Amino acid sequence: MKKISSIIFLLFALTGCTNTKITNQIKVSNAEELNSAINKCKPGEQIIIANGTYKDVEIKFIGEGTEDKPITLKAETAGKVFIEGESSLEISGNYLEVNGLFFRNGHSPKANVIAFRTSEKDVANHSKVTNCVILDFNNLERDQDNLWVQLYGKHNELSNCYIAGKTNGGPTVRVDLKGNQSIRNYHKIINNHFGPRPRKGGARGETIQLGSSFTSMSPSNTLIANNLFEECNGEVEIISSKTNFNIIKNNVFYKSEGSVVTRHGNYVAVDGNYFIGDGENDQYGGIRIINTGHWVTNNLFYKIKGKNFRSPIAIMNGIPKSPLNRYNQVTDVVVAYNTFVDSDSPWQFGVGTNISQADVLPESEIRSARALRTEVVNNVIYNSEGDANPIIEHDKADGVTFASNIIDNNGVEVKNSHGLISKKLTLTDIGTGLSVPTSGFDDVEAYNGFDFETITEDLLGNSRSKSNQIGAILNVDNINLELLDKSKYGADWYSNEVEAKEPKTHTVSNASELIAKLKEAESGDIIALNDGVFKISESLVIDKTITVESKENSEIIYEGAANTPAFSLQPYGKLTVKNIKLKGNNSNYAFASLKANMSNHFGLEVIDADISNFNYALRVYKQAFSEEITFKNTSISDCENGIELSEETNDRGDYNTEYLTIDNCNFNNVKQNVIDYYRGGYDESTIGGNLLITNSTFTNCGEKEKNKRLLNHNGIVNVNINNNTFKNNKVQFVSILWGAKNNVESNNTVINSGEIKTEENLVMTLMY
Amino acid sequence: MKKISSIIFLLFALTGCTNTKITNQIKVSNAEELNSAINKCKPGEQIIIANGTYKDVEIKFIGEGTEDKPITLKAETAGKVFIEGESSLEISGNYLEVNGLFFRNGHSPKANVIAFRTSEKDVANHSKVTNCVILDFNNLERDQDNLWVQLYGKHNELSNCYIAGKTNGGPTVRVDLKGNQSIRNYHKIINNHFGPRPRKGGARGETIQLGSSFTSMSPSNTLIANNLFEECNGEVEIISSKTNFNIIKNNVFYKSEGSVVTRHGNYVAVDGNYFIGDGENDQYGGIRIINTGHWVTNNLFYKIKGKNFRSPIAIMNGIPKSPLNRYNQVTDVVVAYNTFVDSDSPWQFGVGTNISQADVLPESEIRSARALRTEVVNNVIYNSEGDANPIIEHDKADGVTFASNIIDNNGVEVKNSHGLISKKLTLTDIGTGLSVPTSGFDDVEAYNGFDFETITEDLLGNSRSKSNQIGAILNVDNINLELLDKSKYGADWYSNEVEAKEPKTHTVSNASELIAKLKEAESGDIIALNDGVFKISESLVIDKTITVESKENSEIIYEGAANTPAFSLQPYGKLTVKNIKLKGNNSNYAFASLKANMSNHFGLEVIDADISNFNYALRVYKQAFSEEITFKNTSISDCENGIELSEETNDRGDYNTEYLTIDNCNFNNVKQNVIDYYRGGYDESTIGGNLLITNSTFTNCGEKEKNKRLLNHNGIVNVNINNNTFKNNKVQFVSILWGAKNNVESNNTVINSGEIKTEENLVMTLMY
Repeated sequence: MKKISSIIFLLFALTGCTNTKITNQIKVSNAEELNSAINKCKPGEQIIIANGTYKDVEIKFIGEGTEDKPITLKAETAGKVFIEGESSLEISGNYLEVNGLFFRNGHSPKANVIAFRTSEKDVANHSKVTNCVILDFNNLERDQDNLWVQLYGKHNELSNCYIAGKTNGGPTVRVDLKGNQSIRNYHKIINNHFGPRPRKGGARGETIQLGSSFTSMSPSNTLIANNLFEECNGEVEIISSKTNFNIIKNNVFYKSEGSVVTRHGNYVAVDGNYFIGDGENDQYGGIRIINTGHWVTNNLFYKIKGKNFRSPIAIMNGIPKSPLNRYNQVTDVVVAYNTFVDSDSPWQFGVGTNISQADVLPESEIRSARALRTEVVNNVIYNSEGDANPIIEHDKADGVTFASNIIDNNGVEVKNSHGLISKKLTLTDIGTGLSVPTSGFDDVEAYNGFDFETITEDLLGNSRSKSNQIGAILNVDNINLELLDKSKYGADWYSNEVEAKEPKTHTVSNASELIAKLKEAESGDIIALNDGVFKISESLVIDKTITVESKENSEIIYEGAANTPAFSLQPYGKLTVKNIKLKGNNSNYAFASLKANMSNHFGLEVIDADISNFNYALRVYKQAFSEEITFKNTSISDCENGIELSEETNDRGDYNTEYLTIDNCNFNNVKQNVIDYYRGGYDESTIGGNLLITNSTFTNCGEKEKNKRLLNHNGIVNVNINNNTFKNNKVQFVSILWGAKNNVESNNTVINSGEIKTEENLVMTLMY
Repeated sequence: MKKISSIIFLLFALTGCTNTKITNQIKVSNAEELNSAINKCKPGEQIIIANGTYKDVEIKFIGEGTEDKPITLKAETAGKVFIEGESSLEISGNYLEVNGLFFRNGHSPKANVIAFRTSEKDVANHSKVTNCVILDFNNLERDQDNLWVQLYGKHNELSNCYIAGKTNGGPTVRVDLKGNQSIRNYHKIINNHFGPRPRKGGARGETIQLGSSFTSMSPSNTLIANNLFEECNGEVEIISSKTNFNIIKNNVFYKSEGSVVTRHGNYVAVDGNYFIGDGENDQYGGIRIINTGHWVTNNLFYKIKGKNFRSPIAIMNGIPKSPLNRYNQVTDVVVAYNTFVDSDSPWQFGVGTNISQADVLPESEIRSARALRTEVVNNVIYNSEGDANPIIEHDKADGVTFASNIIDNNGVEVKNSHGLISKKLTLTDIGTGLSVPTSGFDDVEAYNGFDFETITEDLLGNSRSKSNQIGAILNVDNINLELLDKSKYGADWYSNEVEAKEPKTHTVSNASELIAKLKEAESGDIIALNDGVFKISESLVIDKTITVESKENSEIIYEGAANTPAFSLQPYGKLTVKNIKLKGNNSNYAFASLKANMSNHFGLEVIDADISNFNYALRVYKQAFSEEITFKNTSISDCENGIELSEETNDRGDYNTEYLTIDNCNFNNVKQNVIDYYRGGYDESTIGGNLLITNSTFTNCGEKEKNKRLLNHNGIVNVNINNNTFKNNKVQFVSILWGAKNNVESNNTVINSGEIKTEENLVMTLMY
């Protein structure tokens, strides 16, 4: 194929590259003029949108450009045309380009913010959206799924865009393949900066999805290359490839809590990517492999600590004769020429095996089919602290060929080595803070698998023709990568780097000052309460990052109406409360989210506080989400309800916070919902939330709890209950732990409070 | 792609086509010499096998030829090298050719007769088997599945071969795709003559299978072109395409009881094929469609009377989220520019819907997903006798676009026409006995679907660039096809046409003459018994086509041992018995197959006979098969057992005869197994056997039958019990009919014999 490709390239080079001719520019400054210009647009024309803010515009950009004469829709000044309110962009026709738009302060009234079609039949081809930004353009509710960019048609491009902040359900970008007009699409998703996508709290938070299981038989040939993925934490899948023949190449996955997953579809190339972690966060993942014929080559995994589903290379077990939307067996996969530095147990096989769940799951859910005809060869592992288990077999890797793999394990013996050759290696600084072994193993002869001659270059693009050394990076001089130079990705007019700002402290002495300064404060500021009692009768609105702290000994008495909160946690509202006494009237709440329209996440950290006499200490409503909720050194007493995060009962895998942490707290006389944290739906790949309860005391709590459990955490995957005291709580169980998942307890004192029980399997609703 | 293909072709034309150079010829005349020659063979060499018969040879042809200098293994004279006994051929390496061998009088000791590999890793590439014949090279038992030709590797060819007579299980030819070395194989199966493959009696009787459900995600790109399929009756699938991107083009399907089926896999082109029936046999089928993205274009269907699964175009319902080995939904399929002449209800949708079976089948077996995004356009239907239902919707065709289709229905009104345009057409003689409409509808504008510009030619290869008339054949002058000129297909030295031979009649007057003449007779001959009694003490061996008849009034008394038959029906033994009285000793049998090694089918027709005093009238053992078994005007009386065909109890869909016909017979005092005919296993696509019982009388029968049924036909799909009398049979049921299938009864008289009952659904073992 190489030869043919070159010939094709040559042909294009000779015939295709005449200069683009601009025949006309039309300037528009409102929707009407824009529509009129679009209606009349001819090949080669540029429609220039005047700088300004455009609210509630639904643009349909339909046109017929040519290869030489595309039609362009562009901002007068890139980044100075703001699309806000209820707005969207749809494109159909041929050779169209959209350039320089900024989508912010709003959301789409449609299923997409940007769609490469204007109707089911009218798609775009040879068209691109480039140099644009979509920021926080979220639907009002988390459950209102949509897509920010959906590609249809063929040969389209999403390039040099900055896209960040999606909190509602649905992948950020999806390629749709329904219909012959959208297969073999050769779309390019290149040079973009996918900025932070916060944890969504459940599934449907991918950054890119290529097709769906229903089109998983279709050839897609989509290219995802040279993008920066930064903190793409939406869910366990950053890129979910669900079609065939896609290429994922030369991307940087930086501190992103997820993996590249070949979820459906086959024959995907994952080549020359960088997976960069911090050596601590165990949510940063690598590549998870399902199905047939994928080639995983030339990738670098650096300080990736993800485990199991998120391990650097996770080869899953399949379901024999799997249903279309579940897990086909791994066959004919090649994992070759990759380098792993300080990444824990990087090779895991039989991931997702659930043979032991046969009692609670139907046969069509049992992943028992191990990988077949798979090669893991020519890889290099370096561990500055030795890892006794670089290879983990959740199920036997008996269908896998291991050859010509080496490890420097710094003296630690490797169990279950599958022929790993031990070597003493040195590291080379290759820039971007990465130190990688690139030499010292040229004596190891590379395994020559079928078609391996097609692996012609290393991670850096150096030819393997002279030296075909194993590992991702050939031994060449003076490597100095600048992978995190953000000017290389995204829109050239936008940067997500913000200067650190010194927080301002607003000292207040009475309730009206508190209310006034809270309004006035900028995000990040501190409201410092002087000593005294602050009587408040209406909710304090938290819609930015704010710390409310007391200097020594101040008290907020909330006298507001029943079922309203002292602190109303609204979108973007990240509240830290320190050293405050907070008292209610027994009918109202200390903290609560909005009941609706939580279009962005909130946050809550409560330290050294004393909360009493509320109906709820915290009430989080359905569809509200906080990445973390922490109570520390805090007392919660004489409340009807405690910490309530249990409204996500649709059993689609959703939950209200990723991390709920209770440390060194006292719960006394909290009658029900002492801690109530719910996640429902059988889904092996939502692997949150996280409940940590440590060093705390629960006394006289739970007497009204209907299910007789003190701590309710149904379906939460990670639960750690450690070093607590439970005394005189009128319940049957302190907790029922889910043994098959990561639910553990230790060192707890239970006096007159029922028992802590472990149930291995939990019967749950099937999500799929 | 067209352009690129042309460039590639040009490159090959300029650089690749130097003449083949033969550097050396090595003649061998035994296996040792052959092996030695193979071991030493060099590019360009020819190994010549001397004419003669080679018994029990397992050839491994391993070599490294080049494109210019292939290595050839060929017969000294094509067709004069006979491979017999337990023999096989395996090939691996590059650029190898096998030419002129004749496999007969034996079977393979391995899983294949010819395999394009010598071990799991060592496959053949760029190699071919050509100008060879494989005839009746059957395993000894029908259940010993194997393959006659299995292709592995890439770019191999099976061409100009004659292959016929497979009776044991397993496709005749299969392409294997397990392993990356065998995908994108571009194999060519071309110019072959696939001669008669007899009905197998159950599944696993395909003529060609491309992959399997386990590799149904793999790109295959196999070409099946210009082959003649003659009487390929093995099962409902002639070609079972189970992988992606295959091309099935310009083949002739002549009087073949099955269909081309896109069973698994997607994006298959079925273009420009001829499906030729006789206007009577309703087993001849067309194209059955499952899965995504197939293009069915330019095909001619002539007098095809297949129904439902076998209808000319059968679009199946899928199973929602189907298991890998079952039925995916039909989506994105194009059926365009086809012509249908005198073919019944040619377009059927929702084929295989079984929503009504939800009581007896698991949800994962319910085919309820209708075709989506499918186009049926630009087709022509001609019916010389009008067909009120050219379109049948077993389930709604609501996901199908119909456009620019026309019909000449000779005045009969079309129900449910979906926009069919009515026209008066005339037929043009195009040779091969085919008369087809090619003109009179150029005023109908062709529907222009997505990518339809790629349909550049008609069925005959004429360019559509000037006139893009609908239907398969453009209106051009002087078409004179010679599709059935067999010299165009298969090996040039072999013809399956045999001259009709006048049968010879051997008249015999006593038992010893009878035995002697039966041995001496040639296949097709007649043994005529003079009047008298023939006492026989050993079984008469029937291993050819023989008629045994009496001139007026002769009787055969069989005195042989218990459980031995008067007539032993052996492989190839097709017996007709006419006007004979046949009497046993109550412990022996009238007719029986062998207990084992029925390596070819038998046949039995009994007319005007009188059978009495046997343990069994007919006993057919497991794995024995007869295409038809007929009893006519015959009496069966005073027997312990009647007609016994019930040993195929493995519930894999197998049975012992395709057609069991009982007409105008008398059964009297047959104690059990009066008629016992069994097929087991849930399988929607084995659509036999066939039981016809008409104008017959059953008296005092079945008293020892354990299940209290007189006629046992469990699982037989087609049952017709018509115009019979049942009198004084001590049973509970005369018959229990399977209502959901084609089981019917009419006009029967039942006196003191239980009842005839219909049960809608039968609980059966799932086969898959």
